[in-house]
Amino acid sequence: MLALHFDGRSARVADVAPPASEPGSALVRVALAGVCDTDLQIVRGYMGFRGVLGHEFVGRVEAGPEEWLGQRVVGEINFACERCPVCRAGLPRHCPTRRVMGIQEADGAFAELLQVPVANLHAVPDPVSDAAAVFCEPLAAAFEILEQVEIEPGLDTVVLGDGKLGLLVAQVLRNAGARVRVVGRHPAKLALLERLEIETVLADDWQPAATSLVVEATGSREGLDRAVAAVRPRGTIVLKSTVADTAVFDFAPLVIHEIRVVGSRCGPFPPALAALAAGAVTVEPLIHDRFPLARADEALRSAGSRGRLKVLVEPG
Amino acid sequence: MLALHFDGRSARVADVAPPASEPGSALVRVALAGVCDTDLQIVRGYMGFRGVLGHEFVGRVEAGPEEWLGQRVVGEINFACERCPVCRAGLPRHCPTRRVMGIQEADGAFAELLQVPVANLHAVPDPVSDAAAVFCEPLAAAFEILEQVEIEPGLDTVVLGDGKLGLLVAQVLRNAGARVRVVGRHPAKLALLERLEIETVLADDWQPAATSLVVEATGSREGLDRAVAAVRPRGTIVLKSTVADTAVFDFAPLVIHEIRVVGSRCGPFPPALAALAAGAVTVEPLIHDRFPLARADEALRSAGSRGRLKVLVEPG
Repeated sequence: MLALHFDGRSARVADVAPPASEPGSALVRVALAGVCDTDLQIVRGYMGFRGVLGHEFVGRVEAGPEEWLGQRVVGEINFACERCPVCRAGLPRHCPTRRVMGIQEADGAFAELLQVPVANLHAVPDPVSDAAAVFCEPLAAAFEILEQVEIEPGLDTVVLGDGKLGLLVAQVLRNAGARVRVVGRHPAKLALLERLEIETVLADDWQPAATSLVVEATGSREGLDRAVAAVRPRGTIVLKSTVADTAVFDFAPLVIHEIRVVGSRCGPFPPALAALAAGAVTVEPLIHDRFPLARADEALRSAGSRGRLKVLVEPG
Repeated sequence: MLALHFDGRSARVADVAPPASEPGSALVRVALAGVCDTDLQIVRGYMGFRGVLGHEFVGRVEAGPEEWLGQRVVGEINFACERCPVCRAGLPRHCPTRRVMGIQEADGAFAELLQVPVANLHAVPDPVSDAAAVFCEPLAAAFEILEQVEIEPGLDTVVLGDGKLGLLVAQVLRNAGARVRVVGRHPAKLALLERLEIETVLADDWQPAATSLVVEATGSREGLDRAVAAVRPRGTIVLKSTVADTAVFDFAPLVIHEIRVVGSRCGPFPPALAALAAGAVTVEPLIHDRFPLARADEALRSAGSRGRLKVLVEPG
């Protein structure tokens, strides 16, 4: 089958062996897959991954347990052991021996067929289109913040970054009752938010001020320094960016201002699917371009260009 | 009067003008003052402070409002405006225009006389000796953790560092119900904890493992990396060390393991005084040496030597 394979040096569309059908897993024929900034980081060396890239998808189950056959599904990306103390403590996304779809020891979704543990599958409700369902994984990552930080009504919140994740985070936090302002560098992206009645400001015009909650979703090393400048004493910074570099950082302000920094990664699929089914989150205008699987390498390059939002790969 | 003055290059005992008596403030004749690692950091350039050093003290009010005259007192070190939004929000220790005793724009306690806002004074209960009361400020900093992090009964906790603050933090967290282990480098200091029935381990023998709460109190840049290695997914690191250096840091583990990092600085005096009055915290065995004020520069050097615990300065 065709797949976008990363060999540690470059990502190329290649003919690879299709995944095997295994007990406890399903084979999913991928309908749509989304490019995430993490894919771009992986190609720069993040996680030391080798294999088929991609972890945002919607597709249809082609082989596996009978009750799943033919179902339209999305899938959680952390393949957990379900037996260790971490899994039994209810944190399978943190299973120490987990494999992660397209990120760590498990082939990903830029392929015709994808193997996913049945435990990770979620059926997509009928009203949710493929083009919306493919946003489930990053939208779940936005919902993760609600599991980690209490959002009081009217909580003053700044989202740093008007990329794909920033736009989803802003909507989720606004829907949860926060007073949200998004700081970005792209007027076209900020205009999307303004149409959703979310306040925005261009980074060059922005004056960092004492904010209770700052979500760092710029994907850049500098974002954290700006978050520290923007947060109030005893305030919270949520770190959403995974970057491959280390950074020189001054920890004294964290201690002096007693700031709380919360790392935040993958999130729960059910509230994301529910929000998509209810139309509570707008995602389809974020689609910037689509490429057939045979040109998935171009999709990656396109997603890495300045100003792009979501780029999709269509194996079907 | 005599005082230990830092001019930006060196700390010297000098004859300086005594502080003036001002409305809203008291003049305190210092009985005992403690050397803190922050004093050592300041002499290395932290905070850019110039003036009389020292912020841990116990003394007797010599001038000021009548109700305070003659009282034995300790004093909070953040001199707040009490009018700004931060102060009115109940966070005077974070007042943006605060001065800080011996640290920022306010003369400190290594002196015969000390000026302290009346709002910052706390009367010392009779059962608390001077030698115990002088620990009130660092003990309050240990109690600060209880205002920031929920300690569930039996919470598995590691304190990194067997310095003065680490020994106080370990006792406060143990008394709050946590299951505490202290990682240190000094057998004599760890023996103090063992006598208090707090588990200890030498750093060289320690295997970092998935811990729910890690308190970083080593005072070194490397402590945070060790804390990240020791904390479990979704666990909490409390940063207690203020260091003058920046550090190269890899933020990816914070995001991947969804770790919460909480900066923690000064704390509330009332629970610290109550714990000292109840004998719930053992502090006097931490006293390593005492110097008269005329030799306060030696006290600073002594406190900076390896293996030292609390060094006191006696102006009286």
